[in-house]
Amino acid sequence: MQYVQETYPHIPVILDAKRADIGSTNIGYVQAAFDIIGVDAITVHPYLGKEALAPFLARKEKGIIVLAKTSNPGAGEFQDLPVGDAQEPLYQVVARYVAHTWNANGNCALVVGATYPADLKKVRTIIGDVPILIPGIGVQGGEIAATVAAGKDSRGWGMIINSSRGIIFASKEDDFAQAARRATEELRVEINKFR
Amino acid sequence: MQYVQETYPHIPVILDAKRADIGSTNIGYVQAAFDIIGVDAITVHPYLGKEALAPFLARKEKGIIVLAKTSNPGAGEFQDLPVGDAQEPLYQVVARYVAHTWNANGNCALVVGATYPADLKKVRTIIGDVPILIPGIGVQGGEIAATVAAGKDSRGWGMIINSSRGIIFASKEDDFAQAARRATEELRVEINKFR
Repeated sequence: MQYVQETYPHIPVILDAKRADIGSTNIGYVQAAFDIIGVDAITVHPYLGKEALAPFLARKEKGIIVLAKTSNPGAGEFQDLPVGDAQEPLYQVVARYVAHTWNANGNCALVVGATYPADLKKVRTIIGDVPILIPGIGVQGGEIAATVAAGKDSRGWGMIINSSRGIIFASKEDDFAQAARRATEELRVEINKFR
Repeated sequence: MQYVQETYPHIPVILDAKRADIGSTNIGYVQAAFDIIGVDAITVHPYLGKEALAPFLARKEKGIIVLAKTSNPGAGEFQDLPVGDAQEPLYQVVARYVAHTWNANGNCALVVGATYPADLKKVRTIIGDVPILIPGIGVQGGEIAATVAAGKDSRGWGMIINSSRGIIFASKEDDFAQAARRATEELRVEINKFR
């Protein structure tokens, strides 16, 4: 963080730590993430609800990115459960609550995996132009064309498409730095091709 | 942890860290909690499902304690949502899955807050004698008599009743150590009175 802040202060840093506890404990997580480490956004679990996450949501200048549909193969075990009279999948209920009742400060975003492009498209229709953090590209198998088509907002953006292992492990040889840069640039070109 | 392990090696330590990520990341959390810090059990979020939590569940000798109904005032926002044809609250579905399909190694437990004694009773009927970690006593307002009546298993035990702030902040004066011990002993006597 110190290196990024000193060298590339314009680059936002997202802490994908998937935190969430009761309110009094979240105060400590908020201090650790935003005041000590100094990141610009953090991912959180929705399970404890808005009331518990209030210390995160109150930080207007920071991004609070809530898990909706995660990228892992077994994500649907609970996230796809049909809820209420409309039998709406849980991840869609979460996306709706976050976009429409948690987002008073305009600092919320959702996580939806690139491995579920149909679900990504559905979330986009529910949340309007709220940003979506999209993991699952690369090693996990998500495809760029389908992801961008499903995830882009009304302006053709609103996506943070993340590749982790595809970039940091782009090479196991001495050229790992150059290989990581090359993989990043290729991904960027590929994303923009479909916007 | 080092002090507890050296001085009171018979006392189990639970890391109430509420972790959960995709499988490859959970491998790191498992190593940190069980192999580096060396705790005996950890709390986890259910949201990503059994497949993601496999690295935790595979550790047969450790306790994996899954959030069902948390103790915070707004816990019901998602946890109480009615699921499926039976309109069963989500926390009950989570409790059922964990007790009956995640627990192949017999190392699972559930979290249910003392602040919801009726829900605690319901979970006990669903999960049989699977242990329940029960936070929310003391500062959060949960009552011992109602908690034990609702939470005890068929043998009159199966509860880990937790008080955090009620014990560690039992006194702000120099007698804090004695006050903490006194608060702990009082809680223990109170719990056993209702078993």
